[in-house]
Amino acid sequence: MTITLPTPSSIASAHTLIKPYIHHTPLLTNRTLNTLASTPQTPESLKDTPYEGQEPANPKIRFFFKCENYQRIGAFKARGAFHALLRLVEREGEDVVRARGVVTHSSGNHAQALALAASNLRIPAYIVMPRISTPSKIAGTQSYGAEVVFSGSTSTEREAVVAEVQARTNAILVPPYDDYDIICGQGTTGLEMDEQYKELVSAKPELSVHSDSAGKKGHIDAVITPVGGGGLNGGVTTFFSDKETRVFGAEPSFEGADDCRRGLEAGERIQAVKSLTIADGLRTPVGVLNWAIISDPQKHSGVFAVTEEQIKAAMRLVLERMKVFVEPSAVVGLAVCLYNEDFRRLVEREAPNGWDVGVVFSGGNTTVEAIGKLFG
Amino acid sequence: MTITLPTPSSIASAHTLIKPYIHHTPLLTNRTLNTLASTPQTPESLKDTPYEGQEPANPKIRFFFKCENYQRIGAFKARGAFHALLRLVEREGEDVVRARGVVTHSSGNHAQALALAASNLRIPAYIVMPRISTPSKIAGTQSYGAEVVFSGSTSTEREAVVAEVQARTNAILVPPYDDYDIICGQGTTGLEMDEQYKELVSAKPELSVHSDSAGKKGHIDAVITPVGGGGLNGGVTTFFSDKETRVFGAEPSFEGADDCRRGLEAGERIQAVKSLTIADGLRTPVGVLNWAIISDPQKHSGVFAVTEEQIKAAMRLVLERMKVFVEPSAVVGLAVCLYNEDFRRLVEREAPNGWDVGVVFSGGNTTVEAIGKLFG
Repeated sequence: MTITLPTPSSIASAHTLIKPYIHHTPLLTNRTLNTLASTPQTPESLKDTPYEGQEPANPKIRFFFKCENYQRIGAFKARGAFHALLRLVEREGEDVVRARGVVTHSSGNHAQALALAASNLRIPAYIVMPRISTPSKIAGTQSYGAEVVFSGSTSTEREAVVAEVQARTNAILVPPYDDYDIICGQGTTGLEMDEQYKELVSAKPELSVHSDSAGKKGHIDAVITPVGGGGLNGGVTTFFSDKETRVFGAEPSFEGADDCRRGLEAGERIQAVKSLTIADGLRTPVGVLNWAIISDPQKHSGVFAVTEEQIKAAMRLVLERMKVFVEPSAVVGLAVCLYNEDFRRLVEREAPNGWDVGVVFSGGNTTVEAIGKLFG
Repeated sequence: MTITLPTPSSIASAHTLIKPYIHHTPLLTNRTLNTLASTPQTPESLKDTPYEGQEPANPKIRFFFKCENYQRIGAFKARGAFHALLRLVEREGEDVVRARGVVTHSSGNHAQALALAASNLRIPAYIVMPRISTPSKIAGTQSYGAEVVFSGSTSTEREAVVAEVQARTNAILVPPYDDYDIICGQGTTGLEMDEQYKELVSAKPELSVHSDSAGKKGHIDAVITPVGGGGLNGGVTTFFSDKETRVFGAEPSFEGADDCRRGLEAGERIQAVKSLTIADGLRTPVGVLNWAIISDPQKHSGVFAVTEEQIKAAMRLVLERMKVFVEPSAVVGLAVCLYNEDFRRLVEREAPNGWDVGVVFSGGNTTVEAIGKLFG
């Protein structure tokens, strides 16, 4: 099977297409988090890890947070959904797509993103959701005018219901992550980060680790994003693949949710994951196309994993210190920078002056009750 | 006793003075909250209120949120603290103030604000805090280099310890809210809202209820802020006192924390409050100077109160929908706009085309554990 992978220019053209439909989310900095990341962890915090008894790493890091929690529907998924539908209309014609409609299965942010994009473009949308989904998510999806069709919880049951919907309506399937157009849409996150970083650092050089160096670097040194199905990380990796910026991925290690990291170690994509990590957007195995991108060492610099406690600690910092409301999945990249000694040693080793690191906060769709359960 | 009250121009000159030391916090808009505020409440939600059985009000409101949760130390209090210290230095001379130091009693945002401002201006600071204060607040205050001195919890006990500190150090007292310079500092919040509103609405007229009207209004129609000791509300009221903008106050009604509202009704300031409202920044009776400002109908348009449940509902919306992390005290103004039928009827009656309403989010200093307790 030949697969066609996106290129940096396909992401630039995706951005032109979706720009009128999406929010231009802010790129924020934070002094407290810079200081924390640039301070060695305590020896106690390395207990029961492979680094117990060793000198904690001492990297220098300046953060640039891309706040996709402020994106439409509260997550980056709006980018891919709008792009996929706009391309569909381009290829098939408005009338055909409106007559057939679109279908997907998701209980998360992709469901709401597709429902919103379809509603904006006046395309009927059918969203297959497990019967046990939280009522607020069902109501959220319905509020965009989509028809919610219920299914069982296993992927077999969900796919059977999608097939039923397609048989009944002839609706076109829009997959959540393993899709050329979706990847291009999500990759626009990287394009905006690149632009915003340059603008910000040229206005305020003191925000960068390179403020003192004579030859300023053009691009941000590194970018890290969460990896679930891999659409966001695959797209961002593609965008930076012809630039000097290195791209990393972040996953939860709980119950094997770090399938991409483990797959890279084993040299083979892991096809199934069954984890109940609190980072509920990242319980999915990485998709085929995204694996092809992320497993290419010419493009990608590695995936690092963090524990549930580390995700919670990072989430607390973002909420309490930055005053920014994020979901657990959103902070795994920050958690890697703060707590993963492998990553921190890498930064220290590679860059005595430190790195400017772009961190994608992927979404903010959680509830006060969920926070109560996490920290109560 | 003659009291001297601040004027709009004293607030303008305060702003010039503190500008290099404070953050220029954003003025945010939100479509979802505009829609909610511009939709009548359900008849059921008026049950057990004086409006039960009546037609719910149907005002039109566009919000402009001044996010002082993104201010230094996470609350507007940084404005007053910097202003008070800068004026003190102006009057007494740097050397005198540095030799004597400053003292206050507070377990909340004023403690951290004074500690920060003193540290920035290299003035010793003594903060009297109740022994039972949460360890994170004590640590936060100490982290700015202030000396924390412990006391009992009653105001008599706290004042005794302040007197001890003054006897020992000759430190100058910087009160939290009932003070000319503090009020001028907090009032700069209003000045910035006024500027930012004009800028925003001239760039994006569709954000205003007046977008369609031929003669655009120059100033925002109304501003509402929380009222605890009244420094913020008194300062903002002063700033707008020579403009067309009306200023309102918002208080929690729980256990009589709406002392300012009740005082206005009775025609006399209420001097003591003993409430454990969840809006813990608003458990204080309004101060003498602030009462003089707020009780002047030439300057002030009224205070409205909301229940604990209404505060929680507003807080949930700000966290989950706006993705902005705020403390309960910060959202009482929004709660008034969404849920107080008296206020909503007033808007409907006064303005068939609706009002642009500036809402001050006063601070964001809460914890995930506190949110767990509120909503768990």
